[in-house]
Amino acid sequence: MTEDLSPQAAGRRVGIADVAARAGVSLGTASKALNGRGNLREETRARVRAAAEELGFAPNTNARSLLSGRTFTVGIITTDSYGRFSIPVMRGAEDSLAAGEMIAFLCDSRDDPIREQHHLRKLLERRVDGIIVAGRRTDERRPLGRDLPVPVVYALAPSSDPDDCNVVSDERGAARLAVDHLVKTGRRRIAHITGPHSHASARERADATIEALAGHGLRLVGEPYFGSWTEAWGRFAAAQLLRAHPDVDGVFCGNDVVARGVTDGLREAGVSLPMQVGVVGVDNWALVAEAARPPLTTVDLGLEEIGRRAAELLIAAIDGHPQPGRHVVAGHLVVRES
Amino acid sequence: MTEDLSPQAAGRRVGIADVAARAGVSLGTASKALNGRGNLREETRARVRAAAEELGFAPNTNARSLLSGRTFTVGIITTDSYGRFSIPVMRGAEDSLAAGEMIAFLCDSRDDPIREQHHLRKLLERRVDGIIVAGRRTDERRPLGRDLPVPVVYALAPSSDPDDCNVVSDERGAARLAVDHLVKTGRRRIAHITGPHSHASARERADATIEALAGHGLRLVGEPYFGSWTEAWGRFAAAQLLRAHPDVDGVFCGNDVVARGVTDGLREAGVSLPMQVGVVGVDNWALVAEAARPPLTTVDLGLEEIGRRAAELLIAAIDGHPQPGRHVVAGHLVVRES
Repeated sequence: MTEDLSPQAAGRRVGIADVAARAGVSLGTASKALNGRGNLREETRARVRAAAEELGFAPNTNARSLLSGRTFTVGIITTDSYGRFSIPVMRGAEDSLAAGEMIAFLCDSRDDPIREQHHLRKLLERRVDGIIVAGRRTDERRPLGRDLPVPVVYALAPSSDPDDCNVVSDERGAARLAVDHLVKTGRRRIAHITGPHSHASARERADATIEALAGHGLRLVGEPYFGSWTEAWGRFAAAQLLRAHPDVDGVFCGNDVVARGVTDGLREAGVSLPMQVGVVGVDNWALVAEAARPPLTTVDLGLEEIGRRAAELLIAAIDGHPQPGRHVVAGHLVVRES
Repeated sequence: MTEDLSPQAAGRRVGIADVAARAGVSLGTASKALNGRGNLREETRARVRAAAEELGFAPNTNARSLLSGRTFTVGIITTDSYGRFSIPVMRGAEDSLAAGEMIAFLCDSRDDPIREQHHLRKLLERRVDGIIVAGRRTDERRPLGRDLPVPVVYALAPSSDPDDCNVVSDERGAARLAVDHLVKTGRRRIAHITGPHSHASARERADATIEALAGHGLRLVGEPYFGSWTEAWGRFAAAQLLRAHPDVDGVFCGNDVVARGVTDGLREAGVSLPMQVGVVGVDNWALVAEAARPPLTTVDLGLEEIGRRAAELLIAAIDGHPQPGRHVVAGHLVVRES
């Protein structure tokens, strides 16, 4: 038996020099063959690739980046520690990035501007090709920085600078989908129970609800009930609503958590759901929507699609085709039993 | 006015060559000064640093890594698309990594072995210094690979290879904390309602519940109720429990979602909580625990601490001090009103 002198046997990583030696070509030729660059005979290219495969050579992406000036990395800065909103956005972004052989550094800013600037510095030191900023609220936020050397795309929470590239949910469209569904299922006396008035998403959904009802020749039952994004508020508001407007037959809720509270509140007040009152939420958060009694009909805002679009727009910007402005992703209705 | 020839004015990134020119030193000297290496006069080092600061030079971490053989990056592969378990683990890991000036690539394997191997290949191509694998179930999992060139630490879901480095939750300790609390608050007829028998965490918590009760001279009321991690199961099991054992005065639930179902089931059957029956969950998932009526007393498994420990152990392994084996992180009880 001869001694095994292969890099694997020696316990070290296979390098491009090993591949060149095995294929009987120069280092430069091996590099060109593996990077798909330069003028090489197809036979040579094939021989190098075969050698690389035999040796289990993994190309060093970091070395490749020194040649191309790109690192094929992007940063994702999320403000959303709970992951409820940013995880689907990230999942979608990852899908699009992987198609471009890119990979993401994850940074959690925890809604803290100091942490955010720290992460920004670190990402620029790493020479990322671009940055996605994913927020959890639809309110406008301060831009990440001025004159940054790489493109930035904002997902869900738009930048206050209209020249930035923002991918946002269709807040008004969500209200239209909900109202249209309630009207289509025969509801005519529709109320709106939602989160805090200080949240852009609560205000926009409320405005659009009134507008969508007007489109059907209907008026909102009472004023919009602004409160908090909690079940307790949903239960409490449902009781208030029943006392003031016992003839209500539909409720559009600003999100699923509130809708779950509303269904509990109505049911415990003796209202039969969905016979007497139809309820629609927003978010399609399976955990909440499926656990509600009855399971919630709700508007899915397409968070994954927002992430995918943000990554596509970032890749385009990195390739020299920035598309600043507001990119609105449409949601869709998920019909369950409420 | 003289023309501004600075790199900023030319719209390009400041390079180390610019710093060297400004400080009047060679490239090598500038590099040593900024990396804190080599023998240099303190005056020279200070001059280079001042030049770097004036020019707004951000060191290229990627170039630094070519010198040190380290990239100061790690990969985090998560199987947990919803983020419920992996986000706190990642948050903890990020805390520890940042202390070592490291940054994490995030990969979501979606519980798919093919995606996982794809991510592993990509991470090795990026020359990460190490990998954390974060799972959502406490069941043993297949090791990520054999003879990997970098250290791996498993967080929450341990590897089936006992020589791997695993950071896990204290499943038995969680049951002890819950039982001790129920007994201390005067409960003597305690039942256990939990998730599927096929999940290691359900089995271990059930076994430890029986053992902890025995330590108090008590026996479990009925057999453990194995079912699913859903509220609907919790409600259903609560009704079954009441029929078979109307004198029950405490229920330890395998997680907060089940506990929420149990509290609803008991309350709707006319049981006064917590006067007649005390309920304890596991997870301290704020969304669920705080929305339950009454808000849930629950065991926090310390997921962030698991992430922190995993990152610390990974950094130690990268530095040449691997600590294989099972590292158990203790949980703690969070007392609310149930």
